[in-house]
Amino acid sequence: MSQSLESPLSHVRRGPKRASYDAELIHQIIDSALLCHIAQQKEGQCFVVPTCHWRDGDYFYWHGHAKARNVHGSAQAQQKVCISICQLDGLVLARSAFHHSVNYRSVCLFGVPEAVTDFDEKARHFKIFLDKVCPERWESLRPITDDEIKNTGLVRIKIEEASAKLRAEPPVDDAADYDWPVWAGVIPLEQKWGKAQQDPKQTEPYAEPEQLFAL
Amino acid sequence: MSQSLESPLSHVRRGPKRASYDAELIHQIIDSALLCHIAQQKEGQCFVVPTCHWRDGDYFYWHGHAKARNVHGSAQAQQKVCISICQLDGLVLARSAFHHSVNYRSVCLFGVPEAVTDFDEKARHFKIFLDKVCPERWESLRPITDDEIKNTGLVRIKIEEASAKLRAEPPVDDAADYDWPVWAGVIPLEQKWGKAQQDPKQTEPYAEPEQLFAL
Repeated sequence: MSQSLESPLSHVRRGPKRASYDAELIHQIIDSALLCHIAQQKEGQCFVVPTCHWRDGDYFYWHGHAKARNVHGSAQAQQKVCISICQLDGLVLARSAFHHSVNYRSVCLFGVPEAVTDFDEKARHFKIFLDKVCPERWESLRPITDDEIKNTGLVRIKIEEASAKLRAEPPVDDAADYDWPVWAGVIPLEQKWGKAQQDPKQTEPYAEPEQLFAL
Repeated sequence: MSQSLESPLSHVRRGPKRASYDAELIHQIIDSALLCHIAQQKEGQCFVVPTCHWRDGDYFYWHGHAKARNVHGSAQAQQKVCISICQLDGLVLARSAFHHSVNYRSVCLFGVPEAVTDFDEKARHFKIFLDKVCPERWESLRPITDDEIKNTGLVRIKIEEASAKLRAEPPVDDAADYDWPVWAGVIPLEQKWGKAQQDPKQTEPYAEPEQLFAL
């Protein structure tokens, strides 16, 4: 067991048996996903938006247009955002409708976003992000420009108030139902990268990327 | 073009060229996903949780434990929740790091949750939900009980304030970069249901479900 990230906010009230506050497990789930959902409020109204994220040590990062609400706005507001990551792993088909479920791995994080404004640190992070998506690609690209770095906002929260929640098992039915004559079990969800589609504007037969984010 | 679901709240400010308010398109994206993220606030703090959803006409439904925050709490609060659905369709690899992107289909919805408490209507909806996940399964299950209906909360919002946002194209690079010597294009994300895993507690060779939610 690594460090615990439990707090009054991150404490899981519903389904506590499926919850964990283990930092290592939380980091693993964060790293296994490309997309997260970030919720913040403005004038009493919550807004939730999907975005791509990455991690560096104990910090969780995302980026966007320097003026976007979930980047500039969230770092200005000095309010705790709530971030969710959820990977669907399968359908759980039980003997009764009530016990149907899904297998999943999810994380919920809280933190006050902090803007990262240092030029070199921003460039370093954009490389970390690209290395997550497509390792070794950065070096082959047209180099990043100062304007691109300036116009891209970078924000982070410290991963210190968080929970994970998972389900990874067969159906759990009522004892009396186990003999009910219907197929029961799990249908796993499988994801893979499909055949690369070269940009139709490109006529040279350049080599496709060899490595991609591991699904 | 069907009805427009644009409103001051659902108006997309960032990337408006990729936005649509077309009700038919919004319904399609809602129906193409099993999972959504629901954001609501309590005492000034946003919380966002993943859950499964379904649609019936102009209404968007989710369910949960009758006492859960995102079911009972959200219907009590009489506040507009914000709901996001996002389907990742592929990685977009450009000639510069800055123009890397993802292809996706997303929807953002706003509405005040309304609890559905009528017994028969609740049962009817649990069948609609199961029919979405696994058509024709409901009839083969141990019938739902009154207690199960009572203990499951059902909530809905009217789909009347919403936006869709999509990207479905090759990279869009700077004009000067199109000759840069690196592979560029889209890597599509493919999803499928894997081999069914029968509950180890089940020894009879019952037939696996023939139909599942279309990925």
